[in-house]
Amino acid sequence: MEKDQYYMNLALQEAKKGRYQTWKNPMVGAVVVKDDHILATGHHIHYGKSHAERDAISKLTPEQLFNSTLYVTLEPCNHYGKQPPCSDLIIQSKLKRVVIAQVDPHKLVTGKGIAKLRAHGIEVNTGILEKEAEELNQFYSFFYQNNRPWITVKQAVSLDYRVNCQSQTCTAITNQTVYDRVHQERADYQAILIGSNTALVDNPSLLTSVKTDYPPIRIILDRRGRLFNQQELKLLTDQQAPTWIFTQSPELIKMSTPKNVRIFPMRTNQLAEVMGTLTQEGIQSVYVEGGPTVAKTFVNEHLANYLIEYLSPNLLGKNGDLGLLANHPVTLKNVQIEQLADNLRIAGEINV
Amino acid sequence: MEKDQYYMNLALQEAKKGRYQTWKNPMVGAVVVKDDHILATGHHIHYGKSHAERDAISKLTPEQLFNSTLYVTLEPCNHYGKQPPCSDLIIQSKLKRVVIAQVDPHKLVTGKGIAKLRAHGIEVNTGILEKEAEELNQFYSFFYQNNRPWITVKQAVSLDYRVNCQSQTCTAITNQTVYDRVHQERADYQAILIGSNTALVDNPSLLTSVKTDYPPIRIILDRRGRLFNQQELKLLTDQQAPTWIFTQSPELIKMSTPKNVRIFPMRTNQLAEVMGTLTQEGIQSVYVEGGPTVAKTFVNEHLANYLIEYLSPNLLGKNGDLGLLANHPVTLKNVQIEQLADNLRIAGEINV
Repeated sequence: MEKDQYYMNLALQEAKKGRYQTWKNPMVGAVVVKDDHILATGHHIHYGKSHAERDAISKLTPEQLFNSTLYVTLEPCNHYGKQPPCSDLIIQSKLKRVVIAQVDPHKLVTGKGIAKLRAHGIEVNTGILEKEAEELNQFYSFFYQNNRPWITVKQAVSLDYRVNCQSQTCTAITNQTVYDRVHQERADYQAILIGSNTALVDNPSLLTSVKTDYPPIRIILDRRGRLFNQQELKLLTDQQAPTWIFTQSPELIKMSTPKNVRIFPMRTNQLAEVMGTLTQEGIQSVYVEGGPTVAKTFVNEHLANYLIEYLSPNLLGKNGDLGLLANHPVTLKNVQIEQLADNLRIAGEINV
Repeated sequence: MEKDQYYMNLALQEAKKGRYQTWKNPMVGAVVVKDDHILATGHHIHYGKSHAERDAISKLTPEQLFNSTLYVTLEPCNHYGKQPPCSDLIIQSKLKRVVIAQVDPHKLVTGKGIAKLRAHGIEVNTGILEKEAEELNQFYSFFYQNNRPWITVKQAVSLDYRVNCQSQTCTAITNQTVYDRVHQERADYQAILIGSNTALVDNPSLLTSVKTDYPPIRIILDRRGRLFNQQELKLLTDQQAPTWIFTQSPELIKMSTPKNVRIFPMRTNQLAEVMGTLTQEGIQSVYVEGGPTVAKTFVNEHLANYLIEYLSPNLLGKNGDLGLLANHPVTLKNVQIEQLADNLRIAGEINV
């Protein structure tokens, strides 16, 4: 049992090597062990490339693989996606035992890979470092368990909860360390979401500083079509990442845009419709970057899973706009507090 | 020079032994040195008792004192207060040299003690660890330099800057660690100030957990006389510390109270008048504990020197009252951030 944990922990470390490159796929790591010797390690390197099991197994000869044990952080797949099923490869390779951390939450594969392996006489153990594996792909797990994206609401405020000095002007509340952190943090999410007001007032590009083939999609909620004829905005011109606009405006729907920009016509003005579309599009995680009205809506409609508040130790005074004001009290769980120079990052889970 | 700093640092450590007991007097420490040997140390133990110089000198014989050097954190006094002047004692004791950290900011003594010593042929050096000595008695120094009390504004808020869940109800926003810290912190100030609303809604006792003969005076701003016929309030009944009420209400002015309660009739409704009275009464430091309206007034009138914000990582929602809203932006200096379990203490100086 202790040995199983040791090898699984190694597989978890392997998995992390795929960070920022597996996109909609989970990070997965694998270790092949025989007679207490590690024969090979592997991980899912990139979306569309080999799964972790294949990555490890491909490094070994049939003799080495025979009667060996595979440690893998996620249940091996049993369906044809961009890759042939790993379960078949394991069976063909004549492995004796497979140790799995997390059963795949994805409806297409959950339990099926395990059943197939067992049907072919392979011993399967599950649940070793399950919690750690689930946390590794927290958003992936959440998405497939709940059939909606994980929503993180982020706001930057002053000590007196202002998001700016004065309405309608763009101000940096927080320091350079926070700026850098946010630009890195964005890469953890598949999409970044803002309202049309933030798009117009701040003209942000919402890019990440992390080198990744899958920069987060920039989503703008623009029900009324305020972005119509605002083609000079960075989000519409820079072509550095996809930009998706949700709107009810017929003019905006017809507006011609570069090919990285997609316009999603909305039938209703409900956030539920947006969430439904994002789910259909397979967006597993969204980083809501403001402003307060958009942030508030996610909290009030019980769609926000996590809150990150960057705090600057200043009072901006009564003329600034307030941060999100929820309709109901919200208690944060597993609160993490971090000091970033003289600013703070306070984050915690919201009971949804 | 290095030796001077070493002995002065020792004197500073000595001074701190008087913490919480010197009341309106500064903490002062003294060390007597001859031929590189420490002969005696002393400190101002208690308001009304021996000064640090006398405490140290009284432990030595005339032979020991002759030609010795005295290190003292504050300029020796040259006037009769509750004690005879220390300058005379030093001259009588035939000391050779006196090293002083801070020149006394008190108008009655500043520079006079030094002049008297020099006039009697004693070598005097000043400015050794001056900054450290000034910080030790920060409020005392501020009071005598600026002729008004040092004002610290403290508030306890949620992540969304609420001071309560719902108007007119008393709620603990922050955790037990913060509660304990505040009860200790109160002892650093000579007075605690609240508005009548806090007195009526919270019915606080505003005591400190620190054992001291000089618990802070509880001050209530009650211009309109809302405390009239509220004699059951702890502040009016517990007799655990003095209670001062500032009011314009004729009824309240005439109300009979226990002898620990003083009523100060106000001629105007201005905070400046309160500050003037506190200055006359020799109150060097005030800890403003609420609520937001009172706190705001001190900040807006540029009377607040320091802000302490205790922060709880929850959203209390839009129905709660907001913390202080300043009329102008306020940048904090020398910000100190401290984690108290899952709560935070964020504090900094206000540029006044």
